[in-house]
Amino acid sequence: MLEYEQFEEKTIERKEIYHGAIIDVAVDDVRLPDGKLAKRELVFHPGGVGIIAFDDQNRLLLVKQFRKPLEKVILEIPAGKIDPEESQTPERTAARELEEETGYRARKLKHVSSMYLSPGFANEIMHIYHAIDLQKVENPLAQDEDEVLELYALTFAEAKQAIDDQLICDAKTMYAIQYWELLIKGK
Amino acid sequence: MLEYEQFEEKTIERKEIYHGAIIDVAVDDVRLPDGKLAKRELVFHPGGVGIIAFDDQNRLLLVKQFRKPLEKVILEIPAGKIDPEESQTPERTAARELEEETGYRARKLKHVSSMYLSPGFANEIMHIYHAIDLQKVENPLAQDEDEVLELYALTFAEAKQAIDDQLICDAKTMYAIQYWELLIKGK
Repeated sequence: MLEYEQFEEKTIERKEIYHGAIIDVAVDDVRLPDGKLAKRELVFHPGGVGIIAFDDQNRLLLVKQFRKPLEKVILEIPAGKIDPEESQTPERTAARELEEETGYRARKLKHVSSMYLSPGFANEIMHIYHAIDLQKVENPLAQDEDEVLELYALTFAEAKQAIDDQLICDAKTMYAIQYWELLIKGK
Repeated sequence: MLEYEQFEEKTIERKEIYHGAIIDVAVDDVRLPDGKLAKRELVFHPGGVGIIAFDDQNRLLLVKQFRKPLEKVILEIPAGKIDPEESQTPERTAARELEEETGYRARKLKHVSSMYLSPGFANEIMHIYHAIDLQKVENPLAQDEDEVLELYALTFAEAKQAIDDQLICDAKTMYAIQYWELLIKGK
């Protein structure tokens, strides 16, 4: 078993490339454990949350939205970024995003897991919650101004079909659907 | 149900920020469906593969490596980037990465799913394969020069423990372990 020092890549120099609203980009010159030099391209992101929530007919709540990097419209579980300036906890972010995107509040947000989405170049972490005991809010928080969202509720069979149709095609939502399948099989 | 035009964000102008070895970064000024303007920060990535592979004792093969964006060592399923210059298919990339990182070849690579890891800002897609009928290669392809990897084989209980210990903590590997759990429950 190798020790930490046999893996560690030490930064010799960091070049800041871009400071944005959502991401920062940098390139590090690193020294590898064997002494050689290499470059690492890095994206820094504040992290986000995704919420697994079912309506009273046990259908999964999903939002349809346009994703510019893909140039297409896809179906995802409700999700959003942690606002570092609000210094929100992931759980509070999850409560806010659930209400903004679906109009529901949950009695309880159960932490399912936290995962790095693309650890080769990005530090973005996604915290997944299972929202339990939903209730409709009369005057929910408004959606973000620069987002167009449409709310859906899909049965398990419909969700599997949406995967086949590549309408559901992102990691957090694919993970959520496996989580759902495990809930069903666990019964 | 909204039509595509009611979601689409049209690029008015693209500013190229960075052209790297692995990622390209751009910022788009987009026109939203309601006519308002917004900015979209975009990361372009060639996509990659992840391989779910079990040894002859039904243990999951995992590689330990240092991830610079996280500044830590984590355990992941074997994975790698598609080399756009080789114009490799995802399946050929999966075969190559499996051999380089584990020293095994598979009789069959079954496509499990393809998923965008972070569709809010990146177009990176991850193709997941289940490697079937492994055999040890006598002189396997060499690992990448700038990677230090250590190979592990974990039982299901050990893998669950590694999640609790946050040693397994990335989306493709968490997805792989759910897939494994579904295989077990499906029996």
